[in-house]
Amino acid sequence: MAIEQFVAQSIGEWKSMRSGHSLAFQIFEDVVSEISITSIENNDPRVVELLAKSGINSENFCPFFMKWEADSDWEPENPGEVSKGECLLIPVPENNSKGRLIRSIGYAESEEAISSYQLLEDGTFILNTQYGQSIAEERIWFVSENVRCRSSIIRTSEGGGILQASFASEVRRLAV
Amino acid sequence: MAIEQFVAQSIGEWKSMRSGHSLAFQIFEDVVSEISITSIENNDPRVVELLAKSGINSENFCPFFMKWEADSDWEPENPGEVSKGECLLIPVPENNSKGRLIRSIGYAESEEAISSYQLLEDGTFILNTQYGQSIAEERIWFVSENVRCRSSIIRTSEGGGILQASFASEVRRLAV
Repeated sequence: MAIEQFVAQSIGEWKSMRSGHSLAFQIFEDVVSEISITSIENNDPRVVELLAKSGINSENFCPFFMKWEADSDWEPENPGEVSKGECLLIPVPENNSKGRLIRSIGYAESEEAISSYQLLEDGTFILNTQYGQSIAEERIWFVSENVRCRSSIIRTSEGGGILQASFASEVRRLAV
Repeated sequence: MAIEQFVAQSIGEWKSMRSGHSLAFQIFEDVVSEISITSIENNDPRVVELLAKSGINSENFCPFFMKWEADSDWEPENPGEVSKGECLLIPVPENNSKGRLIRSIGYAESEEAISSYQLLEDGTFILNTQYGQSIAEERIWFVSENVRCRSSIIRTSEGGGILQASFASEVRRLAV
């Protein structure tokens, strides 16, 4: 599976159940959220701008746009508080099995990030991101056309201690 | 990575945080458990017996023994009730990247099971099991020597509807 196919399969509205595991404290965080993944034109000004800022030069890329709205159980002071966000993502393949991913906002920290990705033989997408203080490894794999799984591990840059693991099962919202 | 190496890496005591996602009802189940994985001799009578019952003939296998003790939050009538179990597992490699796994008790249903497994290029172990009413796909991957992740998907045999997803992050208990 090439990255274009992976992106095409991801386009849509997803209902996500996500569990975060704080390993040191053995705390669970369960969150239900809505995720919307839409395609965006290669020549959209936002794409052109983010590509230029990244310093990566390529004519081969397949950008997409992601929005999410989460309802966490982990903010006792603000029960039911909705956290939301959006980000622009630009995968830039190097070959069929790996490449880089430019993101307007990172996952573990709120900064722009350039990640490297890899596609395994069974279509599993693996993303590695180096942030200032931490390293994130995310995995996404489809278990059927309309269900995908997403896991992440965040570890400290030095020493490699693992801080946090998470897992999301995401079901596509079908038009009715 | 060959299966022998995967089994050797798994031997030990693990503290597991596991989240189950019931997709249709959007219910989370968070469980903390202790898992103990020990090696067992190839000529142990229990191994010989299970192999004979399975009808699989091979001299190349690497059995191990698994015990677990879980503390679920999902049994309101019996808060803090501990569920436990144990099972004998015998991976029988066919080549370096795939083979079969014989289990004295299955994961999704309480019956003996013969699964097929696959090892991806990055060491991810994928297990597929066909039960009477359901199909389970499990994945296990090491994110460091002492942390591993385990996910599972259970789907109905007919139709392929996905019933349940789960994820466990497991941290090795180090001797002190």
